[in-house]
Amino acid sequence: MTDPTPDLPSAVAAALAAVREQGPLVQCLTNIVVAQWTANVLLAVGAAPAMVDNPREAGELARVAGGVLINLGTPYAETVQAMPLAAAGAAEAGRPWVLDPVGAGGMSWRTEVAGSLLAQSPTIVRGNASEILALAGGAGGRGVDATDAADAAAGPAQGLAREHATVLAVSGAVDHLTDGRRHVTVSNGDPLLTRVTGVGCALGAMTAAFAAVGDDPLLAATAATATMTVAAEQAARTADGPGSFAVALLDRLASITPDELRASARLELST
Amino acid sequence: MTDPTPDLPSAVAAALAAVREQGPLVQCLTNIVVAQWTANVLLAVGAAPAMVDNPREAGELARVAGGVLINLGTPYAETVQAMPLAAAGAAEAGRPWVLDPVGAGGMSWRTEVAGSLLAQSPTIVRGNASEILALAGGAGGRGVDATDAADAAAGPAQGLAREHATVLAVSGAVDHLTDGRRHVTVSNGDPLLTRVTGVGCALGAMTAAFAAVGDDPLLAATAATATMTVAAEQAARTADGPGSFAVALLDRLASITPDELRASARLELST
Amino acid sequence: MTDPTPDLPSAVAAALAAVREQGPLVQCLTNIVVAQWTANVLLAVGAAPAMVDNPREAGELARVAGGVLINLGTPYAETVQAMPLAAAGAAEAGRPWVLDPVGAGGMSWRTEVAGSLLAQSPTIVRGNASEILALAGGAGGRGVDATDAADAAAGPAQGLAREHATVLAVSGAVDHLTDGRRHVTVSNGDPLLTRVTGVGCALGAMTAAFAAVGDDPLLAATAATATMTVAAEQAARTADGPGSFAVALLDRLASITPDELRASARLELST
Repeated sequence: MTDPTPDLPSAVAAALAAVREQGPLVQCLTNIVVAQWTANVLLAVGAAPAMVDNPREAGELARVAGGVLINLGTPYAETVQAMPLAAAGAAEAGRPWVLDPVGAGGMSWRTEVAGSLLAQSPTIVRGNASEILALAGGAGGRGVDATDAADAAAGPAQGLAREHATVLAVSGAVDHLTDGRRHVTVSNGDPLLTRVTGVGCALGAMTAAFAAVGDDPLLAATAATATMTVAAEQAARTADGPGSFAVALLDRLASITPDELRASARLELST
Repeated sequence: MTDPTPDLPSAVAAALAAVREQGPLVQCLTNIVVAQWTANVLLAVGAAPAMVDNPREAGELARVAGGVLINLGTPYAETVQAMPLAAAGAAEAGRPWVLDPVGAGGMSWRTEVAGSLLAQSPTIVRGNASEILALAGGAGGRGVDATDAADAAAGPAQGLAREHATVLAVSGAVDHLTDGRRHVTVSNGDPLLTRVTGVGCALGAMTAAFAAVGDDPLLAATAATATMTVAAEQAARTADGPGSFAVALLDRLASITPDELRASARLELST
Repeated sequence: MTDPTPDLPSAVAAALAAVREQGPLVQCLTNIVVAQWTANVLLAVGAAPAMVDNPREAGELARVAGGVLINLGTPYAETVQAMPLAAAGAAEAGRPWVLDPVGAGGMSWRTEVAGSLLAQSPTIVRGNASEILALAGGAGGRGVDATDAADAAAGPAQGLAREHATVLAVSGAVDHLTDGRRHVTVSNGDPLLTRVTGVGCALGAMTAAFAAVGDDPLLAATAATATMTVAAEQAARTADGPGSFAVALLDRLASITPDELRASARLELST
């Protein structure tokens, strides 16, 4: 995304084509709820998942992975020990890593862990409004639920992005993304996205995949978000409920073309 | 459920409507096999899942959750440490919690853990006949398999319910539920329910969701069981095997109306 | 499989019928990514899963299970401690156990763990070419990805099979299986198999199920591989992408008949 960007939808479409062509290896330290779904989402979109989250191997793999996701959904003593090692490994190798602070603000331990990982300067932080507000020092929500509108988090997200030299991606009915200077909204999606567990978590992993094949983290986060939400619109057309929607979403993540993405993505960039 | 209950199907339908309206937060300490499925079942039926099972946070969340599920499917040192903390947190806050003693009787450690949790007076215990018989001191089955008919466990379940002031919900071709005084059977379902992993586990979580929005645990367990098994009958009509059945079950859990539930639930109450 | 085998497809079909008839209990020590999928695959094909992977219970269950799978996908301190206990329990009881060395060669710790488990003489080792080459002392691949053709691993697999008195099953576009003396290829499958996480892992569990009901591990591995890949061909006919393919694969694993398997399996045996 050059700045000013002449054609953000085209840049997003090119990013999807790059993921498909390069098939980046994405290491995920994620939670027991969404591990399978996340791997299947990555495979569908064209990336290669490796769910390695133990402290003996996390740093080792991070130094050779294309990108890394660190997700706090179900933290345990052992996986939390692995997380800073994976972050450090990615940083050493000059590879992007994404922090998804699931439930930050809602519970004490993970809020501390999220703050500590934030201090390691993630390439991108992806979360819902509650979680981002909690990272910014605001009051947290009720666990993993997004009780704050993404819009309300846009300002704090910009502050966090500047302070930590990172990109903030706030998921919601409209997604807000910022690197502290540029601000992007993505206005795609479907309400069924909130009826399937782990869509946000899987988006974090997709974000790492897109970051692995480009050099503009804001564009990567934008492209991942647009791909997920436009595919969701396609999937919702044939879905008969949340079960068939999740199945169709995998099918559409695999079939969506860069052209379709460019034509359907509703993106706005401001600086 | 007033006693005698003039209209149990209507009470069950009202319970489903209450879950949909209130969207209770259900904390699950469950196993690695069914965590995603359980979260998706809760989302489908209208509840909000939070899969928090580490000892640093389990008690903290239990004090604010609507209801708690503790499931012994894949116990580990760390998650077993979290379980009594979650149970105590729920009890402190006056919130219901459900024990699902997966595999009790089949393996030694979890049988002890289940007994210890039973001593903390769960609001509801949900299991198959083997597991309930094991809790009652009988011989256990072969692991997680339900080799005993639910009918045979009805008597021991009544004894357990009285001894521990809890509700026992025994799953089987016919489900038997009792609070030690009242006895309910639910005669819905489909054989495909036994071909999908985690239906019983997810039913435990649904039971916690229904308990969170009502004040009669036997009614809550009855309503959760009826919702799951009537939705299963609907799903089986379009299923082409266990894969498509599981997908359709999520769709039907999301779409089933209180009226459909009332019309299709085959319930019998005796005292 | 008598040797020479007059009719390998018929032997494979009979093995499937035996799994359906006997419903063997398969204990799985597997990873957080594929645990649900593996259990559902086992249920679909007619076996009974028990995902018990903690060190307090793993050996206890292995002594009564029909077969055991040990899969290294997401190793943790506690589960890695359970693995040799499960292997020893199975060996003591004279039951078959299958080693799936996921990611061996790609990461150091699990490569050591895999070598140590290999020294316990698994009945069958199932992996992709990278993993098998790593066990044979060659250079490993990039984590869990199969970057080497299964053909290239056929020779090293034969050496491993002879050295450890085990059966090696190498998954790929064409699957290669050997007990060091006999060599079988299975030429079924569909490219969609590589777009769904955990198909290989689930095949490892199916292999344990087939080994539980027969006395020829090479035949068991062949029958499991043929069942999975022929069912995949059936599933691919109706699939609209990887999501619907995975659903249809479960449906077809449940519906495929021994006759269909015999008619469609493309098997070659050489000695």
